[in-house]
Amino acid sequence: MAIFIMTLRCADQPGIVLATSSAIVSVGGNILENDQFTDPTTGTFVMRTRFETTVGTQPEVLAVLEDHLSRFAPTLSLRDENTPRRALLAVSKYDHCLAEILYRKSQGDLPLDIPAVVSNHDDLRGMVEEAGIPFHFVPVTADTKIEAEATWRGLIAEHDIDYVVLARYMQVMSADFCQDFSGRTINIHHSFLPGFKGARPYHQAHARGVKLIGATAHFVTADLDEGPIIEQDVVRVSHARTVDDFVALGRDVERTVLARALHLVAEDRVALVGQRTVIFSQ
Amino acid sequence: MAIFIMTLRCADQPGIVLATSSAIVSVGGNILENDQFTDPTTGTFVMRTRFETTVGTQPEVLAVLEDHLSRFAPTLSLRDENTPRRALLAVSKYDHCLAEILYRKSQGDLPLDIPAVVSNHDDLRGMVEEAGIPFHFVPVTADTKIEAEATWRGLIAEHDIDYVVLARYMQVMSADFCQDFSGRTINIHHSFLPGFKGARPYHQAHARGVKLIGATAHFVTADLDEGPIIEQDVVRVSHARTVDDFVALGRDVERTVLARALHLVAEDRVALVGQRTVIFSQ
Amino acid sequence: MAIFIMTLRCADQPGIVLATSSAIVSVGGNILENDQFTDPTTGTFVMRTRFETTVGTQPEVLAVLEDHLSRFAPTLSLRDENTPRRALLAVSKYDHCLAEILYRKSQGDLPLDIPAVVSNHDDLRGMVEEAGIPFHFVPVTADTKIEAEATWRGLIAEHDIDYVVLARYMQVMSADFCQDFSGRTINIHHSFLPGFKGARPYHQAHARGVKLIGATAHFVTADLDEGPIIEQDVVRVSHARTVDDFVALGRDVERTVLARALHLVAEDRVALVGQRTVIFSQ
Amino acid sequence: MAIFIMTLRCADQPGIVLATSSAIVSVGGNILENDQFTDPTTGTFVMRTRFETTVGTQPEVLAVLEDHLSRFAPTLSLRDENTPRRALLAVSKYDHCLAEILYRKSQGDLPLDIPAVVSNHDDLRGMVEEAGIPFHFVPVTADTKIEAEATWRGLIAEHDIDYVVLARYMQVMSADFCQDFSGRTINIHHSFLPGFKGARPYHQAHARGVKLIGATAHFVTADLDEGPIIEQDVVRVSHARTVDDFVALGRDVERTVLARALHLVAEDRVALVGQRTVIFSQ
Repeated sequence: MAIFIMTLRCADQPGIVLATSSAIVSVGGNILENDQFTDPTTGTFVMRTRFETTVGTQPEVLAVLEDHLSRFAPTLSLRDENTPRRALLAVSKYDHCLAEILYRKSQGDLPLDIPAVVSNHDDLRGMVEEAGIPFHFVPVTADTKIEAEATWRGLIAEHDIDYVVLARYMQVMSADFCQDFSGRTINIHHSFLPGFKGARPYHQAHARGVKLIGATAHFVTADLDEGPIIEQDVVRVSHARTVDDFVALGRDVERTVLARALHLVAEDRVALVGQRTVIFSQ
Repeated sequence: MAIFIMTLRCADQPGIVLATSSAIVSVGGNILENDQFTDPTTGTFVMRTRFETTVGTQPEVLAVLEDHLSRFAPTLSLRDENTPRRALLAVSKYDHCLAEILYRKSQGDLPLDIPAVVSNHDDLRGMVEEAGIPFHFVPVTADTKIEAEATWRGLIAEHDIDYVVLARYMQVMSADFCQDFSGRTINIHHSFLPGFKGARPYHQAHARGVKLIGATAHFVTADLDEGPIIEQDVVRVSHARTVDDFVALGRDVERTVLARALHLVAEDRVALVGQRTVIFSQ
Repeated sequence: MAIFIMTLRCADQPGIVLATSSAIVSVGGNILENDQFTDPTTGTFVMRTRFETTVGTQPEVLAVLEDHLSRFAPTLSLRDENTPRRALLAVSKYDHCLAEILYRKSQGDLPLDIPAVVSNHDDLRGMVEEAGIPFHFVPVTADTKIEAEATWRGLIAEHDIDYVVLARYMQVMSADFCQDFSGRTINIHHSFLPGFKGARPYHQAHARGVKLIGATAHFVTADLDEGPIIEQDVVRVSHARTVDDFVALGRDVERTVLARALHLVAEDRVALVGQRTVIFSQ
Repeated sequence: MAIFIMTLRCADQPGIVLATSSAIVSVGGNILENDQFTDPTTGTFVMRTRFETTVGTQPEVLAVLEDHLSRFAPTLSLRDENTPRRALLAVSKYDHCLAEILYRKSQGDLPLDIPAVVSNHDDLRGMVEEAGIPFHFVPVTADTKIEAEATWRGLIAEHDIDYVVLARYMQVMSADFCQDFSGRTINIHHSFLPGFKGARPYHQAHARGVKLIGATAHFVTADLDEGPIIEQDVVRVSHARTVDDFVALGRDVERTVLARALHLVAEDRVALVGQRTVIFSQ
């Protein structure tokens, strides 16, 4: 008995669910979860279906789905649930997001393969290697950014990476990289109400006396902090908190929000529709 | 163009989604929302599908669905979205839940018809009649409970009521009533971590110094506070709050939670599976 | 037995608490609540003390406090708890904040006098007068803003107003008004992560697929949405919510946040220190 | 310049704040934080004052405080902020609370000394020793409970322990131990609305379809799960979550709540008044 997760995106039109369920029945399948959404603005239909089947391998089942659905010209993905998504983690010196991700993996709470971690500093090598993951030290300067990204691209290809996760990686990726891995690169960013532009946002937020500080996990676009949002959360702060407290509380909400976002992509629960994400939540 | 909401419950088996989508396509329908869940414990399948169609009235569409789905022996409901669910509200003297419900209706935020309000006290007549809703004063004592409930039953039949909402109605319904309107009677109840049995729960919670107080909206069973849970929330409290503060904060969370629960049933988003609810949330 | 609330602000220096408690003891007082904060950036000390006393009227007790504290050159306020703060509410056509405030007052949950409501539209007269509060219809155009504000100033003086509350009042106050009632004018504003500048913020937030929408209650400065923050909160939203849903959910969080902010100022729990508020929370 | 934290508890009466501030001024002190609460039920006054002083050692300052305050017969504690509180951690096999505590310490976010960890299993030795903390394997059976506790008592005495932290320690302490370390032993416990008695609470909560699961950190009394509450929080769950998901989400909220509770006691922000805690929060 295999369990598959299918995701599909196409222009909205009648008959898609019928064709999909017909394909699944024809491979002896039984639907376990089924979520769909039609975006009214773009007329885009997205669907996630998790089903079990007693007959067929991934290529066979995919062929049947493609056959039944080809007239909708869909973007289609099919994954055996036992073949996890694969992420390349990128870090710098801050370890809170890395530590949270490694801990959740060690608990069996994060069904995501991490075949490599890349960093522009060597500081976190120990934490990574202790978890049994190869650590790649790839220094980067303004002049060597493209060269460094070439190393990343090599790792991405070699390890068949689905998602690049900037887990407090403190360098801006090139516009080309953002473009080439659009919808596949995830960043975590502090967030405030209202937003603060420019340097030292925690200082600015503190000076304004915000009562909530937050974090946003989002897909990366060329405009670093402006891509489609995957997950957000906030924590309450009081006037008695210092800027250092803000930073520490910000770390806590960052690691939680990034971990939740990764859990969502690990289960194929995030679909991109224009500048928005659709979350097939549990 | 009509929009219909279909809900379905049956034993889980392959082919249900296929048959449903086939029926919808055959009436020229297009699925707008589709949610489903299979309860692993009971093997029960539940589904909610919202679709638009250019052909057919509610009876016609229902007949087509029944035809396609009869072999699954489903419990099936089909509603034109422009025909709201109908609720009988029951109150005593506390007005916070009533005021919140009437306010949300006045804003167009709660798509639920309320053809009548019933109460064992006459205090809230003004608030109800001002909202243009008939108010039925039905006094009740231990001796007249069944008689009073007979009046309720009359109102329920007369107004074709879908849900009875105990909006801080301070009397316990008879076991027969609970049984006869099982899955159709909703109550709101304060909640604490841990729970407190017996009299004056806010006093007990205060004496223990709880840091969270909450509310639970649930379906009524013969055991008043133990039915399937629809919605819950909590609010944070400090040691500096008095018992009166606890009660006031409790009122706030009660009215919010009940309003959210009613919004869910108003949109047919709540399915009962054994002692649990499945929430097809937005 | 009278209960007084004292608030004090001065440059931080040793001996303030000693002098205050000495003054309170000298009028036979007993401290019920005592909160203080020293802002490290500005070196400002703020304190709120609630105490009961068997001897003395407000003028007598104030004189004793001034006598003991004069060497600190404090900004000092003393209020008998039975003399509520007084607010002028300003509204336009949206009634959700007004309705919430009136409802909480009717429940005895908001210890604030509202001797008048002012509006640039006549729509909400009924709701206000029904609550027994005089309604002042003061139309305003770009040309008559100063004239209209003169009417407000008259009401503020006549009714000895402590706080002007812009409860979804849809006009920008003049810079002079903001300046003259600095620290006394409160606004409620939607908030998003990230912030959105310009027109139709709910549309922008929806287009970006934010997962949280919020509201901020703040003191008004000449830059309307940028004053010191009193209270904030957020509510979770999904991709399935429409712009109209966002607006409805925004209304809910706005009315809750404004009501909480008013409760704080009603109990003298908000101190202004530079661009930040200190909240002496319960 | 030294910073001291004083905590005080006595029967409420006029003059305590005056005497305290007088004592602090007499040692050249300046108050940085000052929080107090009078419990109306028991008439107990508790206070926490954090102050800096240029003259005096801890014994000297304590002597001055005792001198000024002796007539109130207070329970008084004075700690140099650079001398952290000391905790003995107890664990069994679950490592989520332990990992969170060790991580926060490594980040400098938890100002608490942990001179030893004790466990009835040897499983977590590696994680503890890697953090540079001695690990004590103290097996326990029903017959050897008192003997095992004697070993704990030895560690508590040897390391001058302030708090015993049951970080998912799966054994019930003896009534004598609970009594002897009353107000000094902290436990973390899952919490549900409503509460569930008996075995397998997560299964019970799942069967009832709760929408929130939570955790409570509390002081231990002879009735294990019923002591004064220090901190609580909840996380939202849906019907689609399995019992295993509930347990995993429960782990997350448990480690967060316990870490927050330990931060509070590490900064002397928790006072016990009868069955309630007073939290001098930041």
